[in-house]
Amino acid sequence: MRFKKILMIGFEKDNLEQKYWDRIKLVTEELITLPKESTNVMKHLSTADCLLVKLGATVDKETMNNAPRLKYIGMLGTGYGRIGTEYASNKGIVVTNVPGYSREAVAELVFGMILGCIRELERAKKRALEGDYSDSRYSASEIKDKTFGIIGLGRNGSRVAEIALGFGANVFYWSRNRKREFEAEGIKYDDLECVISKSDFLSLHLALNKDTENFLDEKRIAQIKKGAIVVNTSPMELVDINALEKRLENGDMTFILDHSDEMTEENLKKLSKYKNCIIYPPIGYVTKEAAIAKQDIFVGNIENFLRGTPTNKVN
Amino acid sequence: MRFKKILMIGFEKDNLEQKYWDRIKLVTEELITLPKESTNVMKHLSTADCLLVKLGATVDKETMNNAPRLKYIGMLGTGYGRIGTEYASNKGIVVTNVPGYSREAVAELVFGMILGCIRELERAKKRALEGDYSDSRYSASEIKDKTFGIIGLGRNGSRVAEIALGFGANVFYWSRNRKREFEAEGIKYDDLECVISKSDFLSLHLALNKDTENFLDEKRIAQIKKGAIVVNTSPMELVDINALEKRLENGDMTFILDHSDEMTEENLKKLSKYKNCIIYPPIGYVTKEAAIAKQDIFVGNIENFLRGTPTNKVN
Repeated sequence: MRFKKILMIGFEKDNLEQKYWDRIKLVTEELITLPKESTNVMKHLSTADCLLVKLGATVDKETMNNAPRLKYIGMLGTGYGRIGTEYASNKGIVVTNVPGYSREAVAELVFGMILGCIRELERAKKRALEGDYSDSRYSASEIKDKTFGIIGLGRNGSRVAEIALGFGANVFYWSRNRKREFEAEGIKYDDLECVISKSDFLSLHLALNKDTENFLDEKRIAQIKKGAIVVNTSPMELVDINALEKRLENGDMTFILDHSDEMTEENLKKLSKYKNCIIYPPIGYVTKEAAIAKQDIFVGNIENFLRGTPTNKVN
Repeated sequence: MRFKKILMIGFEKDNLEQKYWDRIKLVTEELITLPKESTNVMKHLSTADCLLVKLGATVDKETMNNAPRLKYIGMLGTGYGRIGTEYASNKGIVVTNVPGYSREAVAELVFGMILGCIRELERAKKRALEGDYSDSRYSASEIKDKTFGIIGLGRNGSRVAEIALGFGANVFYWSRNRKREFEAEGIKYDDLECVISKSDFLSLHLALNKDTENFLDEKRIAQIKKGAIVVNTSPMELVDINALEKRLENGDMTFILDHSDEMTEENLKKLSKYKNCIIYPPIGYVTKEAAIAKQDIFVGNIENFLRGTPTNKVN
């Protein structure tokens, strides 16, 4: 079985390796790729039976109402918070995502960002380039023996927890469900409030949905320990930006994030002002290994749907 | 018992916290601190019974011959390659160092430097600051499942190996002696040549002495795997700089070091030319936790010597 018309929105040529483009072409009679802003989107939607989108894309009720033949929405990415999955279910549309491909990439980045911060690596390298090899005036600290809190012990969170154990941290987690298999490794469960308030390092790993939007609200942000480093490699919609701003103004904590396009320009500008808010591009899932796994799962999902054995269905 | 005259060379006020200065003052009738270049060094040496020096200091035969009353040389640091320990023994001078205080600090830095390199963190942050949040054009890779080689499984090397295990690397080591306790943790022994030639990441952890000078010589440098990242947080005297330069010219490996003052200006300039040679100041042992442990052991050594129960004697 093949699709009649696959519509891909927002994809650039180098988002997929040639062999994955080739595999997509094999499963459709017609392939249309359009930029996000194209005025032709609606026209092609009306006849497409497959819609492929990238992380952060919105596919709402209106979009689906304009796509009477749509059977499948494939997301090249893990988060699908802006896709109306319930409404899709009602219309018999299968939605798939690409989970887990970036587990290692995200977890390793968390430590890269933390160590970059606590060892002042950028400043150190710059000084060395300028010929200053002095070892004084660094206020570095260690991960070992510190309290490392994980919020959300899913695919990524559990990996961060394991690596933190390797560093010799005291690792605590809060998750909606207890995860006994990780507790057996030495990752300790605690109340959400305790994890937030006692952690020297705190890493957020929640999926975005209606329940988790603004999860880190004013009250919880106020509970964060003085001097703590909070890392968010999950969508920033988990965080109340205004409340975060207030806390950043105090200068008594550091917030590190890898921004993906879920955050508005306005919020980005707000946070960029603070020296204690360190913003990276969305490089959490950007490794060679993750890129290959991601494309492979994404195209596999399409093929498996057509074979009648859908994989990574989220609705 | 107290010393008659402690001579401290090259120490700055902020090298020790006040309470450690106070403890030193308590154990001597006279305390002289001089800069390294001072013309008064020889004069004061002739009457000092205790000499305290910082990492990288040279205390040779001539110096000791000029110090007839010297009983104790205390090194604020681990490496004592430039202290003539044998000659000191002949003259009945006890030499002590400060080992192990920076185990975690060094090991954590190794991963900070590696992740900073393989995730291009500095470039990423710079781009984000400039408003470029694109996720493409990063050639990042992961530590997981890579071969991670450790040369020298001592205090620091063994800790690097353990953390690498936490990252899910395949960890191999070569050391002069087998370390069965670490092999039980999953750190595998292999021949030196094999460790050098198969490692994607290679971390050097040898003490500097006559046997290890130029340890990484032309032949061994040529064996390093293409694309490998080699990290040296040990003295650069372990490495044949000219041979390293040749290999760096090829552009097929990356060398990361945290420079301490053992390296000459000339060699430093040579290496600074190469983009694939990343030089940090000597921040391996610079953390708050290590700084406290270091001063505490250093001053404790002096006190313990006077009590007749010397600690951390190296000769």
